[in-house]
Amino acid sequence: MTIGFVPTMGALHDGHRALIREARLRCDTLVVSIFVNPTQFSPQEDLAKYPRPISQDRALCRKEGVDVCFEPTAEAMYPNGFQTVVTLPTVARRWEGEIRPHHFSGVATVVTKLFGIVLPQVALFGQKDFQQSALVQQLVKDLNLGVEIIVHPTVREADGLAMSSRNVYLSQEERKRAVTLYKSLRAGAEAIRRGVTDGEAIQSAMAQVIKGEPAMTIDYLEICDPTTLEPLSTVTRKTVLLGAVRLGPIRLIDNILVAAKHAGRNFE
Amino acid sequence: MTIGFVPTMGALHDGHRALIREARLRCDTLVVSIFVNPTQFSPQEDLAKYPRPISQDRALCRKEGVDVCFEPTAEAMYPNGFQTVVTLPTVARRWEGEIRPHHFSGVATVVTKLFGIVLPQVALFGQKDFQQSALVQQLVKDLNLGVEIIVHPTVREADGLAMSSRNVYLSQEERKRAVTLYKSLRAGAEAIRRGVTDGEAIQSAMAQVIKGEPAMTIDYLEICDPTTLEPLSTVTRKTVLLGAVRLGPIRLIDNILVAAKHAGRNFE
Repeated sequence: MTIGFVPTMGALHDGHRALIREARLRCDTLVVSIFVNPTQFSPQEDLAKYPRPISQDRALCRKEGVDVCFEPTAEAMYPNGFQTVVTLPTVARRWEGEIRPHHFSGVATVVTKLFGIVLPQVALFGQKDFQQSALVQQLVKDLNLGVEIIVHPTVREADGLAMSSRNVYLSQEERKRAVTLYKSLRAGAEAIRRGVTDGEAIQSAMAQVIKGEPAMTIDYLEICDPTTLEPLSTVTRKTVLLGAVRLGPIRLIDNILVAAKHAGRNFE
Repeated sequence: MTIGFVPTMGALHDGHRALIREARLRCDTLVVSIFVNPTQFSPQEDLAKYPRPISQDRALCRKEGVDVCFEPTAEAMYPNGFQTVVTLPTVARRWEGEIRPHHFSGVATVVTKLFGIVLPQVALFGQKDFQQSALVQQLVKDLNLGVEIIVHPTVREADGLAMSSRNVYLSQEERKRAVTLYKSLRAGAEAIRRGVTDGEAIQSAMAQVIKGEPAMTIDYLEICDPTTLEPLSTVTRKTVLLGAVRLGPIRLIDNILVAAKHAGRNFE
């Protein structure tokens, strides 16, 4: 019997739905966890106001044929005396890890725990949180957790904005402007497809698009190795473009994977 | 089918043999790992000269009915890109953790990996490394690893010295003197059994014995809670006496658990 697993923080949207549907095809028993994990939030972040529409979440799970909704309490996950921390110093060092210092150790620890409880053969994560999915893949390899990790492509709104539970924080005005991040990443990907290999040139093609949106400021726009997340000064192989911006009080992240099966001989 | 597991660093002695025999009674398939884990040694420690009598170890395993001797290489356990670290900041903070700063994260990480590879229902550890066994118990609980941990009482030489693979480092002269550590812990345990509850008084009863052995110096002699390893100023419940000393160039550790089923009403 195959157990499939989709770990979530609830506030399920069509991105989660796509993960659940893909999982449903890959297993006999499908477990979805709904747990707003406190250890991956920093004190100044949005733990308290993070959306928790639990009835809607359960209805979506029921409709999609989920067998088990696992909804542990924080007290059950982190009882008195709990202390173990799982860290991945290399994958977590840059980008989101730099801006959110304890975020990824919170993620790595809770994912290890959830895998120990659910015992899945296969678990699905969204590509939207690219660094997280790279971290989980390295974690499973390093700790011999024996779970197949499937990273599902980002599901987008009609205009291209990556779906996220935090998009509900956007005002109508901000919502319209939010897609600029994706447009910026697309500009970078198109530059690579046109044959640009210089990291700085690709980076300025992306930055150019953001600069056309005065309400938006750049946290980072980077050209990286998809496994190590290290920045690449020259694009000669499969590459991920990672972006994070601020739009008023909101942070948005997104990414595009650029396969290197084109153009010049330098590409694998 | 039950899988039982005894993780070791090889150089097997009668202490390991006792673990293997107890494990043999508790499982269908018995796995013993032999792996001198480099990440739990610090650069100035004895990794290179740690004894590795692999033929004798295999012969002992064969004789005791071990089904699988798992002997991974360091390269297989820690391939390029490996980075994950498992830490237990509270249990590992004091005593051995203070003297050997990265030791317990090395232990916690390799135990998590070995459990992921071997997938045992039950694993056995020696009480000799008391802090290690407390750490593994907390680790399994915290990360929901689902392995029953059995801590087997320390096996001793005829004079009382705790068996250890490192005892081969002792000269004949040092070997004779080494038992003083156990005598010191016994003096502490006897003080508790006589009704002494004051931590400092118990500590000086132990220190008194070591002071009779001029070649020996104290790293620590402590009265602790057996779960948290925090020091106790008053003994009112189950207690572990932890000792570490230096004898010439060698460090010795040992411990005694004092059950609190006696004397005054203060005891549970």
